[in-house]
Amino acid sequence: MIILKIGGSILTEKDSTEPKVDYDNLNRIAEEIQESLYADEISNDLIDGLVIVHGAGSFGHPPAKKYKIGEPFEIEDYLEKRIGFAEIQNEVKKLNSIICESLIAHGIPCIAIPPSSFITTHNKRIYDFDLDLLKTYIREGFIPVLFGDVVIDDEVKIAVISGDQILQYIAKFLKSDRIVLGTDVAGVYTKNPKTHDDAVHIDEVNSIEDIKFLESTTNVDVTGGMVGKVKELLDLADYGISSEIINANEKGAIAKALQGMEVNGTNICRK
Amino acid sequence: MIILKIGGSILTEKDSTEPKVDYDNLNRIAEEIQESLYADEISNDLIDGLVIVHGAGSFGHPPAKKYKIGEPFEIEDYLEKRIGFAEIQNEVKKLNSIICESLIAHGIPCIAIPPSSFITTHNKRIYDFDLDLLKTYIREGFIPVLFGDVVIDDEVKIAVISGDQILQYIAKFLKSDRIVLGTDVAGVYTKNPKTHDDAVHIDEVNSIEDIKFLESTTNVDVTGGMVGKVKELLDLADYGISSEIINANEKGAIAKALQGMEVNGTNICRK
Repeated sequence: MIILKIGGSILTEKDSTEPKVDYDNLNRIAEEIQESLYADEISNDLIDGLVIVHGAGSFGHPPAKKYKIGEPFEIEDYLEKRIGFAEIQNEVKKLNSIICESLIAHGIPCIAIPPSSFITTHNKRIYDFDLDLLKTYIREGFIPVLFGDVVIDDEVKIAVISGDQILQYIAKFLKSDRIVLGTDVAGVYTKNPKTHDDAVHIDEVNSIEDIKFLESTTNVDVTGGMVGKVKELLDLADYGISSEIINANEKGAIAKALQGMEVNGTNICRK
Repeated sequence: MIILKIGGSILTEKDSTEPKVDYDNLNRIAEEIQESLYADEISNDLIDGLVIVHGAGSFGHPPAKKYKIGEPFEIEDYLEKRIGFAEIQNEVKKLNSIICESLIAHGIPCIAIPPSSFITTHNKRIYDFDLDLLKTYIREGFIPVLFGDVVIDDEVKIAVISGDQILQYIAKFLKSDRIVLGTDVAGVYTKNPKTHDDAVHIDEVNSIEDIKFLESTTNVDVTGGMVGKVKELLDLADYGISSEIINANEKGAIAKALQGMEVNGTNICRK
């Protein structure tokens, strides 16, 4: 089974203050998934199932910031926080609906599973997550689609749950074969490749030592939290789950990665 | 705790072949719910929580019919059925999103809980339904919104689950205090009131005997399955849960019913 994560920066215009879908990317990626699913010779991992996780992009980040979700608040502000929760949940659901519409138009039997309808967190980390229904959908040949969402938290009341956290959790507990992470850069570089011409690409990361130099540079945050991502993926590598980070803006990259072909990116695995 | 069911015929133009929202009814009803929730003197039942269940109307029925969901099918048609499932799920989710948007705009902290993300059925009847998260949302002061949907069935593979079945299940297992059913007629009549001028309204139904004459008339189906509804509500009455069927097209009817005021309709309760 493969988990495909598609970043919010790929599917939406992330810096837009208004929620805005990047339809060119969305429809192209839906086509690539379709091509991979119905290819004559497809990887066995894919026959065993595919789960898609997507980010919230400009549908989730602006309202989450507006309502300061995750920050401590006074009890008299709880009604406003709840309205914020409702608003964010509805916005990310709208994005998910648009994504599913494109997948369905490409003949992909997807099923949306909003995290807010079955996940709760303890201090912003997942602790209650019943995977039975997800397993049932996969067994029946559906492609579950999960996404960054807001959830009830037993400490901070209301929390944001990122697509990355969901990815990590389901990869571990559903024992996925591998992970494909579609971001807006082709994996890990020595410097931020968007701003540094002399950035050198890293093909493979096997341990935390390999990315130590990244943390000492000043561009850690600019890379879109790449260090954090790699650390979580190294954690999965300990369970035998390898990942590859690819540039989903590159035409054909997702199709190739899903079918197990070589593609420009960074592999995260234990030696 | 009160469960408010709003029929698909109220929130959508049910006979439309294209999915079409009845925005006048939707926004008016959202206003009535807001008014009831924030009224100075509200019924104690409402302080204890509100759950909203809505039908799928013209968003669910046409695609469910198109893909013949619930009917037996050959295994080679399973991919097409799954696409149908995906399409219906996405359509009803869209309707739910529009409904939530109106509720949120009226200051109601609603949370959508799609049945397909936590319910499965056995031969079209619910058998697996974890109510813990629903309880958590109610406890935290949210208004959960559920709706007619498609679900995985262990016999027929794919089944439609009606808002009425969800209503009955959660009323029983969450032990709701009472139920308000907003339909397009003010409850039970001796004949279909839309086509018969001499139809006489029935104020209260206490037993199956009271509606026996309805089954012997020829207009059973024309009344929109009213006999079936009443039978299920009588079943709940045995658990001490009384219901009232009201006309949600009538301005103020839902607001009054939620606040425990008298309203034109039919009460279903045991004597």
